[in-house]
Amino acid sequence: MPNALPITRRENFADWYQAVVKLADLAETSPVRGCMVIKPWGWGIWERIQQQLDARFKATGHENCYFPLFIPMSFIAKEAEHVEGFAKEMAVVTHHRLKYIDGKLQPDPDAKLEEPLIVRPTSETIIGDAFSRWIQSYRDLPLLINQWANVVRWEMRPRLFLRTTEFLWQEGHTAHADHDDAMRETRQMLEVYRTFAEDVLAMPVVAGEKSENERFPGADNTYSIEAMMQDGKALQAGTSHYLGTHFAEAQNIKYQTATGETAFCHTTSWGVSTRLIGGVIMTHGDDDGLRLPPAIAPHQIVILPVLRDRPDDADAMSFSEDLARALSMQGALGAPVRALVDKKAGRAVDKRWNWVRRGAPIILEIGSRDAAANRVTYLRRDQMYDGTPASKAKMQSEDVEPFVKGIGALLESIQKSLFTEAQTRMRGAIRNDLKTWKDITAYFGKDDDGEFKGWVLAPWSKPTGDALEKVTAQLKEQQLTVRNAPLHQAASRGPCVFTGAPGVEEVLISRAY
Amino acid sequence: MPNALPITRRENFADWYQAVVKLADLAETSPVRGCMVIKPWGWGIWERIQQQLDARFKATGHENCYFPLFIPMSFIAKEAEHVEGFAKEMAVVTHHRLKYIDGKLQPDPDAKLEEPLIVRPTSETIIGDAFSRWIQSYRDLPLLINQWANVVRWEMRPRLFLRTTEFLWQEGHTAHADHDDAMRETRQMLEVYRTFAEDVLAMPVVAGEKSENERFPGADNTYSIEAMMQDGKALQAGTSHYLGTHFAEAQNIKYQTATGETAFCHTTSWGVSTRLIGGVIMTHGDDDGLRLPPAIAPHQIVILPVLRDRPDDADAMSFSEDLARALSMQGALGAPVRALVDKKAGRAVDKRWNWVRRGAPIILEIGSRDAAANRVTYLRRDQMYDGTPASKAKMQSEDVEPFVKGIGALLESIQKSLFTEAQTRMRGAIRNDLKTWKDITAYFGKDDDGEFKGWVLAPWSKPTGDALEKVTAQLKEQQLTVRNAPLHQAASRGPCVFTGAPGVEEVLISRAY
Repeated sequence: MPNALPITRRENFADWYQAVVKLADLAETSPVRGCMVIKPWGWGIWERIQQQLDARFKATGHENCYFPLFIPMSFIAKEAEHVEGFAKEMAVVTHHRLKYIDGKLQPDPDAKLEEPLIVRPTSETIIGDAFSRWIQSYRDLPLLINQWANVVRWEMRPRLFLRTTEFLWQEGHTAHADHDDAMRETRQMLEVYRTFAEDVLAMPVVAGEKSENERFPGADNTYSIEAMMQDGKALQAGTSHYLGTHFAEAQNIKYQTATGETAFCHTTSWGVSTRLIGGVIMTHGDDDGLRLPPAIAPHQIVILPVLRDRPDDADAMSFSEDLARALSMQGALGAPVRALVDKKAGRAVDKRWNWVRRGAPIILEIGSRDAAANRVTYLRRDQMYDGTPASKAKMQSEDVEPFVKGIGALLESIQKSLFTEAQTRMRGAIRNDLKTWKDITAYFGKDDDGEFKGWVLAPWSKPTGDALEKVTAQLKEQQLTVRNAPLHQAASRGPCVFTGAPGVEEVLISRAY
Repeated sequence: MPNALPITRRENFADWYQAVVKLADLAETSPVRGCMVIKPWGWGIWERIQQQLDARFKATGHENCYFPLFIPMSFIAKEAEHVEGFAKEMAVVTHHRLKYIDGKLQPDPDAKLEEPLIVRPTSETIIGDAFSRWIQSYRDLPLLINQWANVVRWEMRPRLFLRTTEFLWQEGHTAHADHDDAMRETRQMLEVYRTFAEDVLAMPVVAGEKSENERFPGADNTYSIEAMMQDGKALQAGTSHYLGTHFAEAQNIKYQTATGETAFCHTTSWGVSTRLIGGVIMTHGDDDGLRLPPAIAPHQIVILPVLRDRPDDADAMSFSEDLARALSMQGALGAPVRALVDKKAGRAVDKRWNWVRRGAPIILEIGSRDAAANRVTYLRRDQMYDGTPASKAKMQSEDVEPFVKGIGALLESIQKSLFTEAQTRMRGAIRNDLKTWKDITAYFGKDDDGEFKGWVLAPWSKPTGDALEKVTAQLKEQQLTVRNAPLHQAASRGPCVFTGAPGVEEVLISRAY
C-alpha cells in the first residue's frame, strides 16, 4: 500500500517538504509574493509554541510590550552607519494615500511621506529609542522586554515557514548594567530556547556560538541552536545575541550608576520565529505526512466515529463524545488533554488518513461495536507500523477505562519517543573522526546530491578577519558552512582542519538551510 | 489631599484621559507619527482581552488563521470599484530595498515594485481571495475564520488607543450558504461582543443596528455596540457586518449547492480592537487613575511589603510571599487568582499610589506587625473612599484566612460593582423624554462645552438616501450623530424627531468619539 503522501523523503526531500505543508493543511502561498497564509492547523501549532515560550519568558522575568510596525528611515540609517553587514532588503512605505488618477488607483503624489518608513525587519532601533527614554538609573536595570510581532525581510527565494518575506516571531530586547549581566541573559535565553526545542518541540539541537562572520550585525557574540533535519542539513532554529554597548552608543541608552557616574547599557536580543514549524516538519515528518509532538498538537487525540447510516450510529457518536469529555478531564505534559470528535461528513478511512497526514498523535476509530464492548481502537501516529513500513497501519485496542486513565502517560511517551528517535538520528550522524579537510570533502562530496550527510565536528583554530574569509570561501566551494562551536566542549583534540594550526575549539560543519 | 492625577475628569476630560494613559503606564507615543508603544501594563490588559475573546470565538466554532500583512493594490482597486465610500488613507509600500545614493540611504530606484502593496487596513480582500480557493461545495460551509493582527489606517489626528495609525485587532471573516445563516452569525458575534464587554470589561453597552450611511462600505447591515464614556460621549466599541454577496461577487466566492447549482456565498466580518482599552479607561477611570475590572487586570492583587530596614523586614517579606502563593491557589472569574509581590525599591506609600494610578483592583500593605498578627490591610480600588472623596483612602483590615478564602468572591464583587456603577450611570443618562428636535438641541446645546450630556433615545422615520443625508447634516451642525437603533426595542412611540413623519424605530443620538 502506498504512503499517504505522493512523494517520499528519499525521492526528493524539498518536494516532500512542500507536500507535507500542503497536505497537512499547514500553510499556503498567497497572491503576495513571499508571504504565506497560515491555515488553522498550522496556526494552532504556532499558538501552542507561543503559549509555552511566553510562559518561559515570563518565568525568567520578562514582560511583553508592543512597538510600532514602522521604523523611520533615519533610524535605519543611524544603525547602518554603525553596523557593517547591514542588510537592505526591506519593505519601504513612501505614501500614505491612494488616489484615482486618470481613472486608475495609484499612490497619491500629494501624500508622499517626508521621510520613508520601513516595515520592521527587526526592532533594535525603535525599541532602543524607547529604552533611551525609559532607562535613567541603575535602578531601572535590568530592563527585560519581549515582543510578539510580524516582521518583513524581502525574500527572493521564499519557502513556506523556512524563509518568507513576512514572518511571525518574538524578539526579546534587554538592557543591563554590565557585560556579565548581559552575557548571563544572552546565555540564559539560549538555554530557554534549547530546552524549549527539546522538551516541547521534541527537536534535539546543538547550542553553540556562531563564528565572527556569522554574527548578527552589531553583536559582540551570537549564539544559536542548530537542529538536524532528516536530510542531514542544519536548520538554525533560534539565536541569542550579546550586543555589547554598540546599540546603546548608537541610541544613547545610558544610565546613572550607584556612584553617580554615567554609563552605557549592555544590551541583548534574541528571537525565534515561525521557522520553528519548518523545523518540526523536517525533524518529525515521515512519508505519510507530519508527526506532531503532543505538546504542540492542536488536537492530541482525534476521535472518528465510524457511521454506517444505521440506528446504532447514535451509540458510536454518543460514546465518542463521552470519551472526548473523559479524556479532556485528564492532563498530559502540564496541560489538560486536547481531544476532538471529528463529526464532519466523509468516510472514516479518508478521515483517518487526513489526520495521519496532519500528524495528530493519536487517532481513534469508534464503531457501534466498540461502543457496545466499551473498547477503543487507536493508532499511534509515531508508531504506525510494526517494524518497517508494512501494508497496514497498526491499530491497537484497549478497554476504555485503562485507556482514559493512561492517556497522560501515553501522550508523554509519544512526546519522548519522537525526541529519542530524532536524538538518536542526530547523535549517530555527527562524525568526529574526520581529521583533515580532505576527509571532510570526501565525506560531503562536492555537490549536494540529495544523499543524507550528517554533520562533522572538527577542530579549528578559530580564525578571524581575512583568515576566516579564506576558510569561509573554502567551505562555500563545497556548499558547506560552520554552524557553531558547541558549548561545554572538551579541550580540542587536534590541529585545525582548515589551516593545520593548533585547534582552539571544535565546530560543527554541515550543509544548511 | 489632592488626587493621584494632576488633573480631574471635570477640569478637562481629554487631558485627564491622556494623563491616565501616561501615569497608569499603559502606552506612549512613538517617533512614528500616529503609532503607539504599548507598555507592559497596557499589553497585559490586551493579553487578557485576547485570551477571553479568543475562547469565546473558539466556543462558537471559529478557527484562527493568519493572512499576509500586505495586500496587492489591484485587490484594493477591485474592492474600490465595487464599494462606494471606500477610504484611501493607507500605507503604501513602493520599494523593497534601501540603497546609499550620494552617501544617503534612500529607496533604491532599481527596487521599485511593479505593483504597490498596501499595508492591510482590513483583510476582506486578501481573505476573500483565500475563501474563493477554499470553498467548493456546500459541505465547506459555513467557513468560520478569525485573525489576530495589526492593521494600518493613516490617522491625521491620532489619540492613544482610540485612534492610532497602527492598531491591533481581531477580524472575523465567515462565509455561509445563505442570508439566514450569515445573518445569524452576524447577530451571534454582536452578542459575543456585547456579553464580553459587559461580563469581562464591566462596560455596559447598547447593541443595535447602524443607519445606512454608517454601514461598513459594502455591508448590507452593520451592527455595533456603543458604550457611554464618563463625559457622556459614545464610543463605538465593536462592529459586526452582514456583507450579503457583495464581497463574494467581487472575489468569486462560490459554492456548489446540494442540488448541483452554483451560488455565491453570503459573508460576514466583525472586529474589535485595542480601542477597547480606551473604552475601559473612560468607563472606569477616576481622578486617581485607572480602575481595572479584575477579569482583565494583569495583577488582580498587588502586595506591598512595608520595609523599614529592620530585622523584622524579613517577616513582612516572607509573609507577603506566602500570602501571594496562597492567593494564587484560589480562583476568581473562572481563572486562577493573579497576585504579585512588588519587591521594587521605594517607599510603600509611593508604590501604593503607583498601583492606584494603574488600577490594580486590590492593593495590600504588609508590615511586620501584620505578619505577626496574621492580618492583612488592603485597599479596594473601586471603593477608595467612604462616600465622597475624602482626605484618606479607606484601608480595610481582615484576618489572613478569611481574606484568602474570600478572595474569589471579593474580586467578583469588584467586577460586579464596577459594572453596576457604569450601568447605573448609563441608564440614568439616556433620555427618552425629548420628543422634538428643539428639545434635543436645547438639551445638547450647540457646542460641545465639556459639560456632561448623556444620550437621547428618540423615534425616527429611518430615512434613507437624500432624506438621511439631510438628517445627518442637521445632526452634524450640532456635533451630534445617530449611534444605532437598539435591538429588541418596543414599538416606536411617536413621530420622527427630524421629519415629523411616523416613527419607525428609536435611535440613540449623542456626541461621539
